[in-house]
Amino acid sequence: MTTLPRPDAAPVFDTARSPHARLHPVGLGRVRLTDTFLEPRRRTNRDVTLLSQYRHLEDTHTLRNFRRVTDGSGEPFVGYVFNDTDVYKWLEAAAWTLAEAHDPALEGMIAEAAKLIEGAQDTSGYLDTYYSAGRENERWSDLKDNHELYCAGHFIQAAVAHHRTTGREQLLNVARRLADHIGSVFGPVGEGKRELTDGHEEIELALVELYRETGEKRYLELAQFLIEVRGRGVLGADEGNHTFNSTYYQDHLPVREMNRVVGHAVRMMYLTTGVTDLYLENGDPSLLEAMQRLWTHMTTRQMYVSGGLGARYEGEAFGDDFELPNARAYTETCAAIGSVMWNARLLTATGEAKYADLLEHTFYNAVLPGWSLGGEAYFYQNPLADEGHHRRKAWFGCACCPPNVARLMASLPGYVYGTAEGEVWVNLYVNSEASVPVLGQEVKLTQRTDYPWNGKVELTVGTAAHFALKLRIPAWAEGASLSVNGEALPALRPGTYTSLERDWQAGDSVTLDLPMPIRKVRSHPRVLENVGRVALLRGPLLYALEGVDHPGTPLDDLVLPPDAELSVHSAPELLGSVLVLEAEAQCSPRTDGDLYGPDASDKRPVSGNVRLRAVPYYAWANREPGQLRVWIREA
Amino acid sequence: MTTLPRPDAAPVFDTARSPHARLHPVGLGRVRLTDTFLEPRRRTNRDVTLLSQYRHLEDTHTLRNFRRVTDGSGEPFVGYVFNDTDVYKWLEAAAWTLAEAHDPALEGMIAEAAKLIEGAQDTSGYLDTYYSAGRENERWSDLKDNHELYCAGHFIQAAVAHHRTTGREQLLNVARRLADHIGSVFGPVGEGKRELTDGHEEIELALVELYRETGEKRYLELAQFLIEVRGRGVLGADEGNHTFNSTYYQDHLPVREMNRVVGHAVRMMYLTTGVTDLYLENGDPSLLEAMQRLWTHMTTRQMYVSGGLGARYEGEAFGDDFELPNARAYTETCAAIGSVMWNARLLTATGEAKYADLLEHTFYNAVLPGWSLGGEAYFYQNPLADEGHHRRKAWFGCACCPPNVARLMASLPGYVYGTAEGEVWVNLYVNSEASVPVLGQEVKLTQRTDYPWNGKVELTVGTAAHFALKLRIPAWAEGASLSVNGEALPALRPGTYTSLERDWQAGDSVTLDLPMPIRKVRSHPRVLENVGRVALLRGPLLYALEGVDHPGTPLDDLVLPPDAELSVHSAPELLGSVLVLEAEAQCSPRTDGDLYGPDASDKRPVSGNVRLRAVPYYAWANREPGQLRVWIREA
Repeated sequence: MTTLPRPDAAPVFDTARSPHARLHPVGLGRVRLTDTFLEPRRRTNRDVTLLSQYRHLEDTHTLRNFRRVTDGSGEPFVGYVFNDTDVYKWLEAAAWTLAEAHDPALEGMIAEAAKLIEGAQDTSGYLDTYYSAGRENERWSDLKDNHELYCAGHFIQAAVAHHRTTGREQLLNVARRLADHIGSVFGPVGEGKRELTDGHEEIELALVELYRETGEKRYLELAQFLIEVRGRGVLGADEGNHTFNSTYYQDHLPVREMNRVVGHAVRMMYLTTGVTDLYLENGDPSLLEAMQRLWTHMTTRQMYVSGGLGARYEGEAFGDDFELPNARAYTETCAAIGSVMWNARLLTATGEAKYADLLEHTFYNAVLPGWSLGGEAYFYQNPLADEGHHRRKAWFGCACCPPNVARLMASLPGYVYGTAEGEVWVNLYVNSEASVPVLGQEVKLTQRTDYPWNGKVELTVGTAAHFALKLRIPAWAEGASLSVNGEALPALRPGTYTSLERDWQAGDSVTLDLPMPIRKVRSHPRVLENVGRVALLRGPLLYALEGVDHPGTPLDDLVLPPDAELSVHSAPELLGSVLVLEAEAQCSPRTDGDLYGPDASDKRPVSGNVRLRAVPYYAWANREPGQLRVWIREA
Repeated sequence: MTTLPRPDAAPVFDTARSPHARLHPVGLGRVRLTDTFLEPRRRTNRDVTLLSQYRHLEDTHTLRNFRRVTDGSGEPFVGYVFNDTDVYKWLEAAAWTLAEAHDPALEGMIAEAAKLIEGAQDTSGYLDTYYSAGRENERWSDLKDNHELYCAGHFIQAAVAHHRTTGREQLLNVARRLADHIGSVFGPVGEGKRELTDGHEEIELALVELYRETGEKRYLELAQFLIEVRGRGVLGADEGNHTFNSTYYQDHLPVREMNRVVGHAVRMMYLTTGVTDLYLENGDPSLLEAMQRLWTHMTTRQMYVSGGLGARYEGEAFGDDFELPNARAYTETCAAIGSVMWNARLLTATGEAKYADLLEHTFYNAVLPGWSLGGEAYFYQNPLADEGHHRRKAWFGCACCPPNVARLMASLPGYVYGTAEGEVWVNLYVNSEASVPVLGQEVKLTQRTDYPWNGKVELTVGTAAHFALKLRIPAWAEGASLSVNGEALPALRPGTYTSLERDWQAGDSVTLDLPMPIRKVRSHPRVLENVGRVALLRGPLLYALEGVDHPGTPLDDLVLPPDAELSVHSAPELLGSVLVLEAEAQCSPRTDGDLYGPDASDKRPVSGNVRLRAVPYYAWANREPGQLRVWIREA
C-alpha cells in the first residue's frame, strides 16, 4: 500500500460519526486498484485528463476569472456565470488523486488554483468571481438562475476533499469562511435572514460534508434549512413557461411530499444526495421514506437501461413517465454521476444491495460512456441511438461534465468497500488490495478477478480477525455460488448481500462465482420506442451495436430473432480489449417507403443473414463515426 | 352573394399578374360557404374569437404598447419583443372578415388599431413599438433574435388584406412607408446598405404581396434580396449551441441548396412560402426545384400523420428524420398554418393535386385542433398522444397561434377555388356558392355536399360558358366516380385533378362521389413510437381515441386487431355533430411491471373486449380531460 495521507484515509463522504449510517465508505487511501480495466483508466485520468483539463481552464479564461478579481486588470468575466465550478470540480479531482501518491506537478497546479481561489475570496467570506471585481452590489440578486450557492457547494466539496487527502487547512478555511458568510445571509426570517430557495442544488450535500469535516453543527443546520425551505413554488412561478416552472427547480413540493423525480435531472440528483446525507445525520424517517419513493419512481418510470437519467433536451430534464427516447436521450453525464453519489448514500443508509447494484450499473453504463478511451473527450448527452453525428468533444461552453467525470474517477476506490462494527462490506468487485478497519484492526483484503469481464472473484483475507464479510450478489447474478477455502456454501440470493461471519485466518480464501450469461432485456411496453426490441447485457455491462462493426447494414435492418444463439468472444485488440457478443442475425430491410401508408411496418421480407457484433456501450464512438443502437429489433 | 367589396374580390394571395402561376386563387369575396361544418366555425371566429382576441390585446397591454409610443406616458413596453404581431395578425383576420359583409363593431376596432399603428410609425417609416419611445438607438441591432422584420412582415400582410377587402389606402400607405424604410436600410453592400440576414422569416412573403398589391417592383427586389442573402451561416454561429445554430435560423445553406426542412418549423414554412411566392413572380426554376425537394423531404421524413410539423419542443423545431414523438410532438399550430400557406402557393405554381391534398389535410387535422369548438381557447402545441394534461388555453405569453388561426379561418373561402385561362379549379369541397371569373365571365358555381362527412358532391354550373372544370380527386379517394347530368364518366385517378372541358349550360350538374371508407394507416418502421400501431382516417379527417369515450380502459390497453370490423356512426349530439368510428376491440392490459426485464413486451394476456370509439382528432380535448391516442395498438 502507498503511504496513507491521513488516518481516516479519505472517504468519498465521511459517515464515521453519522448516527444513521448502516455502513461507512472505506476511504480511497485504503484501497488500491490493480486491475486491467479501471486502473488504466484512472491512470489516464491522472496523466491525461487532469492535465488537459487544467489547460482548458486556462484556455477558456476560467482561471483568469479568478485572477481578475485581484489583479486590477479590469478584464471582464468570461463564460457562463457558474464557470468557477469547472475549477472547483477539477480541484476536487486533483485532491482525490493525491490520495494515491505525491505528484509534484499536480500539486503545483493545485497550489496555483488554491492561491487564486483564496485570493478571490472577499473579506466577508463571499466567493464567486462573476460577482466580484465590479458586480459586488448584484450579489445574491438572482438565486434562481445565477448559481452562486451551486458554485459555493462545489468549492466546499473540493476543499473537503483537499483536506481529507492532504490534511492541509488552507482551502478548508476558505470553505468555512464562505459557509459562515452564507449562513449569515440565508436562514429563517425569524433570525433576520433571507428565507430564499436556491435554483441549483449542490450546496446542501456540500454543507453536510463540511459539517462532517469540521464538526461544526451550524453547517448541518444550514444544509437542513436550504433543504426544508424548498417546495413553496417560488422559483419558476412565472406564468406560462412550460419548462422552467417550479417543478424544473424542484421547488413545487416540500421534499418530504415528493413522489416523482422531476425537473432538471442533475439538480434532482444533487438534491436527493444532499437529503440522504441529511438523513444520515438526523435519522428523520420521513426523509428516507421520501428518498426511497423517489428512487422507486426513478427506476421504474424514468431511467434508461443504461442507468442514464433525464429524457429531455429541453431543460435537461426528466420527462413524463416512460418518456425515454433513445436518439434524443439527454442522459447528461453529470446526472449519472449524481445518481452514483445518491446511490452510494442510500447504500450507506440502508445496506440494501439494490443501491450498490445501481451505483455499479450507472457507473459502467452511464458515466463511463461520457468519457473517451483516450481521456480527452467527453459526452454531455449520452444517446442510446445515433446516426453517427454525436461525437465526444474536448470541452464545452458549459463544461460541467468533464471535471465531474474526473472527480468520480479519482475517487472511485472509495466506493469499493464499506465497513461497520464487525463488518466488511464488499460493494464493488475489482482486482485490488485494500486495508479495511474493523473493530480497531486493519484487515488486509485482496481481490483477484477479471471483473467486469468475468464474474469469478477470489477474495483473500490477509489478517486474522473476527468479522462478517458481506458480499454483494448482484441482482443479475442468478446461480451465483460461493466457497470458503474450497468448501461450497449454500445457494445465494441475487440482489442481496451475503454475510460470512467467522474468525477469519490470514490466508483464508473466498471464491465467489457470479455467472455472466448474456442477458436479453426488454422494456415496459409503455416505452414506445423499444416495442419489439431487445437490449443485451452481460454482467454489469450494457452492450450496443455500432455501424462500424456492420458495414453495409443499416442497424435498423438488423434483426436478432428470439432464438438466435449469442456467443461471447474475446477481442483483445478492440477498444482497449473487450469481450464482444456475437450472433447470426437477419437482415430485414426497412426500405425507403412512405412515411404513412396501409402496409404493416413489421412485414418486410428477410433478405439474408448478417453477423451481429455488440460492443460494450461504454466504449461506443471511439472508432469511426457511425450508427449506434442499444435496442435491437427482434422481428 | 353578398356585395363584393372590391372588383378583385380579395384573393388570399394575388397572382393575377404573376407570370408563373398555373392557376390563381379565387378571392374570398367571391365564395360564400353555406355548410354546416366550416361556416359555423367561421361565424364563431367572427362573433366570438375576434372579439375575445381584441380584449386579450387590450388586457395584455399589446395595444397599449402602440399607445405608449405617442402618449408620452413613459410606460414600459410589455411582453415579448414581437408582440406587435398579435395586433397585426388580428387585424389581418378582421380585414378578411370584412370581405363577407359590413360589421360596424369590427370596423370600429379595426379603425382603432389602424389609428394606433399609423400613430406609432416613425417619420422615417420605421414601425415597431418595442424599439420606439426610448429604444430608438437600438433599432436593427439584433436582427437575429429581435424580430423587427418579422413584425414588419405581419403588418404588411395585414395592410394588404385591409386594402384588398376595403379598398382603403390608409394602412397600405403605412406599409409602403415601412417597406421603403426597410429597403433604405437593407440591401447589397454595393448599394451602401446593410447586407444582413433576418432571424425570423415572414417579411419575404409579405413584400411579394406588397409588390402584387402596389405594382412597385422594388418590394419584390427587396424580398429577393432578403431570401438570397440567406445561407452564409451568419446567424447562430456561436460555438457549442446545439439548438440555436445556423440551421435553426435556416441560414446554414442558400435556399437553392437546401435539401431538408430544418430548424424552427414556423420560420421554415414562412420562408418556403416566401420563396414560392418569389418563384411565382420570377419563374426561377432552381427555386421551384428547391421547394419541391423540401416538400418531399418534409412529407416523407418529417411530417406527423396529422400534417403537423416540428417534432421538438427545443427550438420549436424539426427533428431528425423520422423523429416524430407523439406525446412530445411540438406541431405548433402556426407551423401548420404556414404549411397551408405554402401548399397553396405550390398548388398555384404547379396545379398538382398533392399540394391541395396536403393543404386540406393540414387544415382539418393540424390547424383546426389548435382551436376549441367554443372559439376562445387554443393549442400552441398539438400532441398526438396525451395523458389529459394538455389543454387549450385562452391566451399565451407568446400568443402567435390564436390570431394566426383567426386569419386563416377568416380567409378560408379564398382557398376553395382557383381560376386560369378557360379553367375553373375546384380545390376544396364544401357546401357553398361562388362566382368564378373565367375568360371575362362570372361563372356561378354551387356545391351541395356534406363534406367532410360524406364524399358526395353535387356541383351545379349556374352560367353558360366554355371552360374546363378541374376537380381534385384526393389521393385517398380510391374508386371515385363522376357523372355529368347523370351520365357516368370513366374512372378517375386519385391524386390528380380531373378535367371536364365543355360548353357548360346553366343548370348543368356534376356529381362527384369520393368514397370514404375507414382507412387504416401505418407508419414507416423508423417512426419508432408507432411500431405495431395504426391510425384511423376517413375522408380528409384523422381520428383519435379519447379517454372519456373509454371509461376504465387505459388507451394503451386497447388493441384493435387487424381483422376487427370498423363501422361509422352518426353522433349528432357529440362535439358539434360528428361521425364516430367504432369497433369491437380487445383489452390487453399493460400492467405496471418492471421498466426493464426479460419478458416480452407484446405477450400480455387479453382480458376481454371493449368498445373502441374514435372521434375526429380536430375535436379532441373539448370534453373532460383525459387520455388521447392517435396511434392505436394492433396487437
